Amino acid sequence: MPDGFERMWADLAPVGRSAASGGYFRQPFHAAERELAAWFGEQAAARGLTVETDVFGNQVAWWEPASPSGLGALLTGSHLDSVLDGGAYDGPLGVVSAFAAVDRLRERGAVPTRRVGVAAFVEEEGSRFGQACLGSRLATGAIGWDRARTLRDRDGVALGDVVAGGGSTLLEDVATYVELHVEQGRDLVDRGAAVGVATGIWPHGRWRFDFAGEANHAGSTRMEDRADPMLTYAMTALAANKQARLSGQRATFGRVEVTPNGTNAVPSRVSAWLDARGGSDASVADLVAAVERQAGERAGRDGTTVTVTAESVSPAVVFDDALVAGLARDHDGGDWPTLPTAAGHDAGVLHGRGIRSAMLFVRNPSGVSHSPAETATTADCLAGVEALATTIERLAVA
Amino acid sequence: MPDGFERMWADLAPVGRSAASGGYFRQPFHAAERELAAWFGEQAAARGLTVETDVFGNQVAWWEPASPSGLGALLTGSHLDSVLDGGAYDGPLGVVSAFAAVDRLRERGAVPTRRVGVAAFVEEEGSRFGQACLGSRLATGAIGWDRARTLRDRDGVALGDVVAGGGSTLLEDVATYVELHVEQGRDLVDRGAAVGVATGIWPHGRWRFDFAGEANHAGSTRMEDRADPMLTYAMTALAANKQARLSGQRATFGRVEVTPNGTNAVPSRVSAWLDARGGSDASVADLVAAVERQAGERAGRDGTTVTVTAESVSPAVVFDDALVAGLARDHDGGDWPTLPTAAGHDAGVLHGRGIRSAMLFVRNPSGVSHSPAETATTADCLAGVEALATTIERLAVA
Repeated sequence: MPDGFERMWADLAPVGRSAASGGYFRQPFHAAERELAAWFGEQAAARGLTVETDVFGNQVAWWEPASPSGLGALLTGSHLDSVLDGGAYDGPLGVVSAFAAVDRLRERGAVPTRRVGVAAFVEEEGSRFGQACLGSRLATGAIGWDRARTLRDRDGVALGDVVAGGGSTLLEDVATYVELHVEQGRDLVDRGAAVGVATGIWPHGRWRFDFAGEANHAGSTRMEDRADPMLTYAMTALAANKQARLSGQRATFGRVEVTPNGTNAVPSRVSAWLDARGGSDASVADLVAAVERQAGERAGRDGTTVTVTAESVSPAVVFDDALVAGLARDHDGGDWPTLPTAAGHDAGVLHGRGIRSAMLFVRNPSGVSHSPAETATTADCLAGVEALATTIERLAVA
Repeated sequence: MPDGFERMWADLAPVGRSAASGGYFRQPFHAAERELAAWFGEQAAARGLTVETDVFGNQVAWWEPASPSGLGALLTGSHLDSVLDGGAYDGPLGVVSAFAAVDRLRERGAVPTRRVGVAAFVEEEGSRFGQACLGSRLATGAIGWDRARTLRDRDGVALGDVVAGGGSTLLEDVATYVELHVEQGRDLVDRGAAVGVATGIWPHGRWRFDFAGEANHAGSTRMEDRADPMLTYAMTALAANKQARLSGQRATFGRVEVTPNGTNAVPSRVSAWLDARGGSDASVADLVAAVERQAGERAGRDGTTVTVTAESVSPAVVFDDALVAGLARDHDGGDWPTLPTAAGHDAGVLHGRGIRSAMLFVRNPSGVSHSPAETATTADCLAGVEALATTIERLAVA
């Protein structure tokens, strides 16, 4: 008998976990994340599912129908990588729940009428190569290999030196994708619901701001003789926060790299990454433009320069109304609530490439995400498994 | 015949130099800096000088008098380590000039009446273990080994795992120290002088500011629900700049470390190092207190906390008037100008521990320091060698 939900969850708990913070470091193609990829293969084998892995490391475990139908495959799953010092649920909950949902359906004697796949996409968080949803973008051709192979991690290692690359046929017969994910916010707490259905994803993106000045001695250089890019950055970080508040959107500078990063040297360069999200493609573009304009004005006063590079921009996603309504209706206790999310997901990428997609959220009582404090109760997780089983049943069982 | 100044300089030029920036990475006890330590031994051997090395790695090459006198030793030299991405002259110029000055005196047939030592102190910049002038502080007992052994570098390696430690007798008979150094500023350019004499060193120090907040998702967390320490830091960096301008002092945040430093996560923690310097011990303390107060006020608004730790504080140094005057007077073309410096030096540490000390500066036409752009002309460097030879002659030759 394959491992149940709680056993799978307990097995994953120590992998890539920092003893100091309790958070997870599961960067793609490093040891902890590769251990999870091996675990994925073992779980598939224990269930007699065939694993297909593409040239980028994306994995799908296939549950084949008794007799092939004309319908394209139904995919579920999520990702196994984490942000730096992330939580336990973001990603793995969707993969573990998918295996558990297959088990639940089999216990009921269900037989699929179309292929059902459990997916694990690599580098969803972009924590190593800087491009969010990199695995699903590569598998769907949303980003070309010629461009992706040159992406580098913080140690200067290129993606092209890590994976073979080339073309992927992993998703070629996939018609529908349903991703279960821990909620990233507190909507479901306020609504008193264990499970919700996503209506769409806010547009979002990452912009690298490179502030350049002149390195100099922190003691002997008069304040008025400096060209200190740290000052330009500091004002820009405050401006981004203010612009986001004013427009009811989100703007964050969470990553900064300083050159040379010495206590007694005025920096020559500060690079900082803006994560911006909002209600519409236009309003996010306005937000970024306002921040860039204020950065440029301050650079003029500081004697520095600022260059802005869009590293990834994801337009607004509106999931298929009929699919969302079909997933949300008629559960124990009524309908599940529907809600939008400000977080990016592989489901958004697949939707953008023509695969009908939807998402289920499991309540997160802390409301905290991308942090060791992210959590979900076991009861809510099991409600999520049941929700996913029902969803697969509605979409892929006779 | 030992290598002349220009040959020594050319031999050092490639060691630890970054091909990308042209700057130097000569952190203590790493390969490049150890190569310089070995070079020091070779230069001493070529001159028949005996090298004494203490338990911390500080080196002195001794030129012994024909017959011992009652005078304590005269030390000259500087350091061979660099800041991250530093210039070629800061440190090595003083060591190379010291060897060249010994050669010049011997060519003139000079015989010392007291021991003359050429010194190379380790970790003057504090670029690895965070404590400036670490080698000279250890050699003079200004910092105890019990405290120093626990200092850690950015990789978590403790000083106690790198050097044996214990007690040093290297400086026990040293009465006087004269350090030659490239100027860190443009005073000598304005005065039209190749060489100057230091009158003293501004008080200065390093304070670590730890800003703590709550890690969270950069997309799904509303701006008003955040406790983002990056904002508190950004305001503090701007406040430090403003306070320094208002008080005519110096304040720099050149080093920042963000946790977890991911683009799509609000940071849980930002640590940043304030380098502050000014005209008096009291005015520097006032400057740091003002920055700390403003940081605390902003932390209250951001829902974050700030903790300030003094990592090193060096009080004002005023060199001996008579020694300064004796070094400055009666050179070709008149007296050398005298000037204070805002940069810390081993000479300041030795002065603080009762060794009569002074410094010579060689003109830096760029005025830039702690940067690959730091420079000096060969003619000025040779004038510096001559100045140092004259100084040794006046203090240690019959």
